[in-house]
Amino acid sequence: MQNYLIKPIGVVRSDYREASLTFQEQDLELDEEILTRTRTNKGNISELIINEEYKDCLDGIEDFSHIMVLYWSHRINDEERYITKVHPAGKKEYPLVGVFATRSPVRPNPICATTVELLERRENVLKVKSLDAIDGSPIIDIKVHSPSYDSPSNVKQADWMEELIKYFREKLK
Amino acid sequence: MQNYLIKPIGVVRSDYREASLTFQEQDLELDEEILTRTRTNKGNISELIINEEYKDCLDGIEDFSHIMVLYWSHRINDEERYITKVHPAGKKEYPLVGVFATRSPVRPNPICATTVELLERRENVLKVKSLDAIDGSPIIDIKVHSPSYDSPSNVKQADWMEELIKYFREKLK
Repeated sequence: MQNYLIKPIGVVRSDYREASLTFQEQDLELDEEILTRTRTNKGNISELIINEEYKDCLDGIEDFSHIMVLYWSHRINDEERYITKVHPAGKKEYPLVGVFATRSPVRPNPICATTVELLERRENVLKVKSLDAIDGSPIIDIKVHSPSYDSPSNVKQADWMEELIKYFREKLK
Repeated sequence: MQNYLIKPIGVVRSDYREASLTFQEQDLELDEEILTRTRTNKGNISELIINEEYKDCLDGIEDFSHIMVLYWSHRINDEERYITKVHPAGKKEYPLVGVFATRSPVRPNPICATTVELLERRENVLKVKSLDAIDGSPIIDIKVHSPSYDSPSNVKQADWMEELIKYFREKLK
């Protein structure tokens, strides 16, 4: 199968400068100190600086309240793209599962997809709320969020995911 | 900024063999005949054939009812990646908007993100419902769907998107 070339369309500007989730000794590792120190403000504002050549691609985005940001986990090295299983968020009390069964940034193509509230567009800059991407992350795509495409009903998820969400909610409140 | 290489992790097997949405004369074009002839069965089943080397990456995915499939719009040529604006679904009655303000497959990095119901996993094969990808589409990532990540509340979308969803719902019922 053919490979494809991704050209970043912009960059994330954020106060998050340290990754709380890293890859150590063949597994994810969550640094709770970094997490609670830097991520507690749930209303954190980031800016998406879109390259000038793609500025017009944003026209009309103001009519949407939420967007999906695809960005590249640029701190993942090539070797880490071959990892098949991780403990979700590095927590050993959860089962060891395949990376496609998680939202781990470590995966064969390290693309993160995060849906965020769009607060403002000024020319080539989007201001968004609660994007969990560190400063300097390359943005590769932006899509408008539409519930009929993106928010199915009757969703079932793994027990560990329910627990992890509760954990983060508690930790970052 | 650095470019990144995407290596497909698998391929879509589907009865959809013709694209209903193509790029003609500098805009999207929707072929309503293909749409209604091939897409009417909303329960259409596709198979995601994941490369053997990534089979273990799927372990644990059975505990989720819905997944997000990222695939490459492989029929978009390099020139089409420079298009900045389109009429949503090629419909001239809607405003001409930037590609990032749409779900158009034509975009600088032609990645589609579709959330679908996961019906079954057998080894390296996932059976999913209503994936609108044509047969042979290269899969680049799979993520589990979690409402707290992917389904925000209080969503507002452009009027044209509301109308387009109604149009498709009516057309494909």
